[in-house]
Amino acid sequence: MMDDLWRRIQVARGEQVADLVLRNATIVNVCSGECYRADVAIVDGVIAGVSTPDQSYQGREERDLQGRWLSPGLIDGHMHIESTMLVLPEFARLVVPRGVTAVMLDPHEFANVMGIEGIRYVLASGQGLPLSTFVTLSSCVPASSYESPHQELTVDDLLPLLEEQRVLGLAEMMNMPGVLHGDQQVLAKIIATRQKGLVVDGHAPGLSGHDLSAYAAAGVMSDHECTTLEEARQRIRLGMWLMIREGSAARNLDTLLPLVKELHPPRVFFVTDDRDPQDLTTRGHIDSMVRRAIELGLDPIEAIRLASYNTAQYFHLYDRGAIAPGFVADLVVLDDLQTFHVESVYKDGILVAREDALLVDLPSAEIGYATGTIHPGDISEANLEIAGKPGLVEVIGIEPGQITTKHLREVAPLRDGKIVADPERDLLKLVVIERHHASGRVGLGLVKGFGLRKGAIASSVAHDAHNIVIAGVSDSDILHAARVLEEIGGGFACVVDGVVQACVPLPLGGLVSPLPAAELVQQLHALDTAAAALGCTLDHPCMTLSFLSLSVIPSLKLTDQGLIDVEAFSLLPLQR
Amino acid sequence: MMDDLWRRIQVARGEQVADLVLRNATIVNVCSGECYRADVAIVDGVIAGVSTPDQSYQGREERDLQGRWLSPGLIDGHMHIESTMLVLPEFARLVVPRGVTAVMLDPHEFANVMGIEGIRYVLASGQGLPLSTFVTLSSCVPASSYESPHQELTVDDLLPLLEEQRVLGLAEMMNMPGVLHGDQQVLAKIIATRQKGLVVDGHAPGLSGHDLSAYAAAGVMSDHECTTLEEARQRIRLGMWLMIREGSAARNLDTLLPLVKELHPPRVFFVTDDRDPQDLTTRGHIDSMVRRAIELGLDPIEAIRLASYNTAQYFHLYDRGAIAPGFVADLVVLDDLQTFHVESVYKDGILVAREDALLVDLPSAEIGYATGTIHPGDISEANLEIAGKPGLVEVIGIEPGQITTKHLREVAPLRDGKIVADPERDLLKLVVIERHHASGRVGLGLVKGFGLRKGAIASSVAHDAHNIVIAGVSDSDILHAARVLEEIGGGFACVVDGVVQACVPLPLGGLVSPLPAAELVQQLHALDTAAAALGCTLDHPCMTLSFLSLSVIPSLKLTDQGLIDVEAFSLLPLQR
Repeated sequence: MMDDLWRRIQVARGEQVADLVLRNATIVNVCSGECYRADVAIVDGVIAGVSTPDQSYQGREERDLQGRWLSPGLIDGHMHIESTMLVLPEFARLVVPRGVTAVMLDPHEFANVMGIEGIRYVLASGQGLPLSTFVTLSSCVPASSYESPHQELTVDDLLPLLEEQRVLGLAEMMNMPGVLHGDQQVLAKIIATRQKGLVVDGHAPGLSGHDLSAYAAAGVMSDHECTTLEEARQRIRLGMWLMIREGSAARNLDTLLPLVKELHPPRVFFVTDDRDPQDLTTRGHIDSMVRRAIELGLDPIEAIRLASYNTAQYFHLYDRGAIAPGFVADLVVLDDLQTFHVESVYKDGILVAREDALLVDLPSAEIGYATGTIHPGDISEANLEIAGKPGLVEVIGIEPGQITTKHLREVAPLRDGKIVADPERDLLKLVVIERHHASGRVGLGLVKGFGLRKGAIASSVAHDAHNIVIAGVSDSDILHAARVLEEIGGGFACVVDGVVQACVPLPLGGLVSPLPAAELVQQLHALDTAAAALGCTLDHPCMTLSFLSLSVIPSLKLTDQGLIDVEAFSLLPLQR
Repeated sequence: MMDDLWRRIQVARGEQVADLVLRNATIVNVCSGECYRADVAIVDGVIAGVSTPDQSYQGREERDLQGRWLSPGLIDGHMHIESTMLVLPEFARLVVPRGVTAVMLDPHEFANVMGIEGIRYVLASGQGLPLSTFVTLSSCVPASSYESPHQELTVDDLLPLLEEQRVLGLAEMMNMPGVLHGDQQVLAKIIATRQKGLVVDGHAPGLSGHDLSAYAAAGVMSDHECTTLEEARQRIRLGMWLMIREGSAARNLDTLLPLVKELHPPRVFFVTDDRDPQDLTTRGHIDSMVRRAIELGLDPIEAIRLASYNTAQYFHLYDRGAIAPGFVADLVVLDDLQTFHVESVYKDGILVAREDALLVDLPSAEIGYATGTIHPGDISEANLEIAGKPGLVEVIGIEPGQITTKHLREVAPLRDGKIVADPERDLLKLVVIERHHASGRVGLGLVKGFGLRKGAIASSVAHDAHNIVIAGVSDSDILHAARVLEEIGGGFACVVDGVVQACVPLPLGGLVSPLPAAELVQQLHALDTAAAALGCTLDHPCMTLSFLSLSVIPSLKLTDQGLIDVEAFSLLPLQR
């Protein structure tokens, strides 16, 4: 270590040749807020010196940037790799050429499917990439007692991982009631994390007033769920860090940017949270947030700072997020600052991307480790029968484009004393089959709003516990869809009359595809098309399906344990 | 710990009574940059909740601030307690009513006098005060090989102290050449400190270009020695933290504030470095910097942020520097924001000062531990004789008000083959007597510029090794002055013809007085008056005397080892 430091000092002094010198850059300086011409000397992947061009450095390799802008590499402060449905190498292939050099992953879905090994898997699979991957430890598995993940993750499960160098803290503390009511496990996780000087991410949609103070006082440091300016202002005022989130579905940047322009608060940075593979391909990643912010009139240097320096400060990564001596040489060369048009990307001082293409080899994803996670057990049509009686039945009402649902009550569609689907009334049977331990637990209910006239659609992506969720007209199609998912190792499937119309295999955890993004996007498109052919009126039915089990979002949901009245937070019988 | 956290959460929710509620404050919010009305609920010395006044909290104690401003307690990011010549309790008595609630001490002088025990002493003597005292570990003892402190402090000496909770890092790395030339001890200290996630303070006057990059690349994080805007801009650009220093002698605030107003850089905060007791009493401490910055047109919230939030961020003190849930309840109530007029001060949620007076008891200073540090050994007039020959002699030329000196050459004043003082030509004998180990080492030379016509003035404050330095006309007075210092345990003395004219006992380490500031200031004044009566033309001769041994500041200095040519960095014979 002393040899490395001594070498760096000598290079910085100009007494030893650098590995690489980038000449005539227009430095985007996030510390001083200025742009100016300079040369950058790099050795051992670290910036040794930044000097005015007249005092040139020598490098074994030298490159004249001819005035092009040089930005720190971009950092995404909070995202779920599982939402991209891509393996990390493929994700890196897409985002690194866009200037993204570091991401903070909350492997919440893998954690639900594979337990603590799921977190270890994501941590391990991020190694050897031209992208620095850090991990926050999923704090709320299960999301509630009404969900059935692979295993509960207690503070004792998480503690050993807090020692890992690439683990930066505790991931989004979604269990707000747990915090506010002093749940021992919740407080123990927060205390253990803060004691080690690590971060505790937050997630507090709608929280305000005294409860928001309490949430912050408990040690939760941030929130990415603000949808209004007032919410965002409240968090900033309470010393919390505002993560401005721009996902594929949930988009808050346009709404919240005015607060940045008004206050220029130190405690704010950009995150993507959930991006689907189509969006990644067209809009991009955290780079798209920088681009959009500049479009909305934010000073480009400040926009870049929100996706580099501020993020690094939050996570205590003191050698990242700026172009300065001693900082990691993660650098983006831009042809144009205003449009954040990336010309090339350096990772640890190595040229890794140029003109939208990755230049380095990627390791193969460790796929085998995470497959074979679909274990529904012996389910027959008998398990899908719902005994019923005349009268009303609780129905989950889809709100298109939302993850909330309506709590409906409809006249129960009956046949031979059983509650069945009634496509004429757009009432489908909804089924959740526990798939981690073949327990045989099946939750049964009805859902309105898919528009499906026949067949069934199934998903093993079902937030948060990711059991198998199926909406369908006939029990035989529903069962068939479940079998298809078991065969393909998880994913999405659309079946009718015993024939598969389309499927998207997601064999890694039943969450992620091994395919390149373009092929995956085609599969997803084919699935949506197949569902539409069956009468489905939603753009992305499997996306909607994947939120029908989320027991912490109002107002009526179905898990393998049964129907959940979220506001009352209790199980609900289908009929009184 | 879980009980404390749970109690805090309940208070924040309004479900349990707070210890203290401050109502109707106008919060100075350094996170959002706003001022607005709010109530603050405090429990166990920590802020639990901040709410709008309409959602009131209940407290065992409640106080209506009636709209007065509430600021975070002020933090001084770098200072030397020894420069105040006051014990820490007395220092606290002076500064806490001014709104100062935390200070970062570099106990460099005690370290030179008492070795590692000197640092431990300062760390221990800061406990139990209504002022949080933190310590950085003095990194450069001795300042150079030409100085003789109590002991050299190696990385092995410092390492155990890095584990202490109140030790925040390595103190000002003044040994720039050591950094640039890869001195093993220097790099080892930096590496050990940065590895533990602690800070490394810098001190790099005049450093620029490649060498400044190298200094930063080596891991040094800050600098408080900038005297020009351009120097300051260079440090900010290189990712370093700019400590704007306003001491009693060295005053940089007015010069550097324009850079803050231009760039609003995140990496900048206020420090006092060296304040004498008179200045502390009249101008104040870090509060005076906030006041002056506002006078110079800086937004008051930003001025306060530079003496609270930013400082806390630099030192990784994540629960200090803002008024927000989870933060330490160090708070200042202001009658007026524009003049930062302090009405009262809360430390850890306790009212500790009101209307310029401390309300709480202070512990007695641990004096005995640090006394008995003057050991000149058996010195006689024979040790003070300088053999000489006709011709030129090197003379240290005082530059009034500066710590630099001129390198003069004058015709040697001789008597009986010895070089003697010649007050007619304003040439005094200058003597440095090693006083830590009674080694008998005496450095001998001449100094011009005191104006003294008879007698001698002596100081045991002599940067950096703090041996005894004496300027005088006759050897008998010089020797007498040394004896007086030994008797009083160190300090300043002015003698003539065997009679003490004035003295300032500084028995703690030969650096610090046990007296209250007002009495000390009187003693210092009497000393200056006594010296003036003897012909001295300098305002504060002992201040000047105390820098004549500083072997790292140009251009000619005297230590117990002899005369030092600072630029050539070598010992120099008095005559060739």
